[in-house]
Amino acid sequence: RDHAAEHAARERLDRMTKPPGSLGVLEDVAAQLAGTAGACPPPLPVPAAVAVFAGDHGVHAQGVTPWPQEVTAQMVANFAAGGAVVNAFAAQLGADVVVVDVGVASPSAPAPGFLDRNVRRGTADLAEGPAMTLDEARRAVEVGIGVAAELAADHGCLVTGDMGITNTTASAALVCAFTGAAPAEATGRGTGVDDPTLARKVAVVERALARLDGGRDPLTVLAEVGGLEHAALAGFVLGAAAARVPVVLDGVIAGSAALVAAALCPAAVEHALAGHVSAEPGHALALRHLGLRPLLGLDLRLGEGTGALLASPLVAAAARALADVATFDSAGVTEKS
Amino acid sequence: RDHAAEHAARERLDRMTKPPGSLGVLEDVAAQLAGTAGACPPPLPVPAAVAVFAGDHGVHAQGVTPWPQEVTAQMVANFAAGGAVVNAFAAQLGADVVVVDVGVASPSAPAPGFLDRNVRRGTADLAEGPAMTLDEARRAVEVGIGVAAELAADHGCLVTGDMGITNTTASAALVCAFTGAAPAEATGRGTGVDDPTLARKVAVVERALARLDGGRDPLTVLAEVGGLEHAALAGFVLGAAAARVPVVLDGVIAGSAALVAAALCPAAVEHALAGHVSAEPGHALALRHLGLRPLLGLDLRLGEGTGALLASPLVAAAARALADVATFDSAGVTEKS
Repeated sequence: RDHAAEHAARERLDRMTKPPGSLGVLEDVAAQLAGTAGACPPPLPVPAAVAVFAGDHGVHAQGVTPWPQEVTAQMVANFAAGGAVVNAFAAQLGADVVVVDVGVASPSAPAPGFLDRNVRRGTADLAEGPAMTLDEARRAVEVGIGVAAELAADHGCLVTGDMGITNTTASAALVCAFTGAAPAEATGRGTGVDDPTLARKVAVVERALARLDGGRDPLTVLAEVGGLEHAALAGFVLGAAAARVPVVLDGVIAGSAALVAAALCPAAVEHALAGHVSAEPGHALALRHLGLRPLLGLDLRLGEGTGALLASPLVAAAARALADVATFDSAGVTEKS
Repeated sequence: RDHAAEHAARERLDRMTKPPGSLGVLEDVAAQLAGTAGACPPPLPVPAAVAVFAGDHGVHAQGVTPWPQEVTAQMVANFAAGGAVVNAFAAQLGADVVVVDVGVASPSAPAPGFLDRNVRRGTADLAEGPAMTLDEARRAVEVGIGVAAELAADHGCLVTGDMGITNTTASAALVCAFTGAAPAEATGRGTGVDDPTLARKVAVVERALARLDGGRDPLTVLAEVGGLEHAALAGFVLGAAAARVPVVLDGVIAGSAALVAAALCPAAVEHALAGHVSAEPGHALALRHLGLRPLLGLDLRLGEGTGALLASPLVAAAARALADVATFDSAGVTEKS
């Protein structure tokens, strides 16, 4: 981030017609946006574009979710038809949605806003062996970098989205691998699984981590226990940073992917904002490790980018205030004694 | 609220293409909106209108703030000129702003969006005696009811705003009177006062409460220790309920005014949403008493309606999802086993 622009933003925030610091967390957001853009005021971070990266997971075979695997492809069709929650939120908030097949098990029909960037038709079972090869992981990261670059050309704010039945299992494994958290601590109920399923999920994460044997090469960890959408999201975070555009992270899938991005390139995550903290326990662990404070806490656990999308108007409002608000001098308002 | 509409909303939320409950707090918001409108789906709560009720306070003489009293009128001019944070947020979020002089010490020039509904040129010093007469309190409440009715005619969501140097002192007194909290617990630093000023503020609240002698007639409490903007905001909450339009509450000023509204008419507050919880300690106490969960927690302490305005896109998004999202049946998505 550009320290001069960030400093200029802090100075301007203190001269604006409001008590110093009274915008709370949004003052940090405004300063960060200036630092990302290298300008004060920064360009308005609009419009927002949410990229929903979709992938399937071989670990589904372990019985870690009550949802059939084909729901991933069915939801991709639902996104393309505009029928999902992320579509409704985007329509209301003036954002665009693109859906990216980076790893869905079955192909989808072409549709407006659908990008076929499939690297592999679902990962292998991470409980039994590597989820994907290093080359596949790298190619999926590159998909994310590419989508970020394309969207940054005509959007001021990128928003992470994801779809993948069972992807909270891979997220929990990534969170444990990068933060050192215990599987029982980082693994949650995802869509709302029962106790026996949760116990299976924790055991699967333990087995996967044992295979890593403490190794921490980020791309290897990603290939061993991650998902194709996690890889793409890590790339999306890197691509947003390269384009100097803010990226708002959604829930635990994006949070765990951002851990990969941070391990590959620590500076990249400086341009990220945590849209919310989800009900999934690994998410708070990931955000703490990344040093990100979530903007919202609404007990969301849907994914798709919904929580990040809800935070995007707050990010835009912070930038707008920095650009528009009068100073004590210009408005003729007396300062405190 | 209309229980049939609320029940229909809950049923629809469970059939939408998402795991049950996965929208967290926004599912409660969506159901509440249906209950307020008496329809499922409810009309979209747009556009939003924020009414900034401005008033001055005789208790300023007690040295409870470092800000000169004339800042209230100067900020009213700043709102009318579009230079304040609430204006920037409203411009970004597509909301309208009206500024209502209900009790400013000096008159303001006419301007677009400025309403002169002055009841009295500032309250008397609540540390020494009643802040206003019962009749003035009643008239200020009626100002708020009237503004709510006017705005509800062409807005789907009302948002509370306020401006008044020293108004956190009156708010603390109202919070103590209605919740039974101790002055040291409910009184905060407002715009950021130092320790000696905070001690004076607490002592002033204690003196005012002693005079109430445990009396709890809502209008009397309001007249004794409240402000004219608090009275108008209490009326605004009542007026929104009468118009069956949701009202989003801002910080401690609105929260303490909602305590008055709830004491006058408990059912009225069923149509209110807490936009955020501010850094001011009395606010959380008020919200707990009202049974309202704040949508945002961003450490804001500006007032003007800024925190409530930031929450308004979330309220609209919840309604949009309820109206637009496909069901498992309609989208051909398989449900969990």
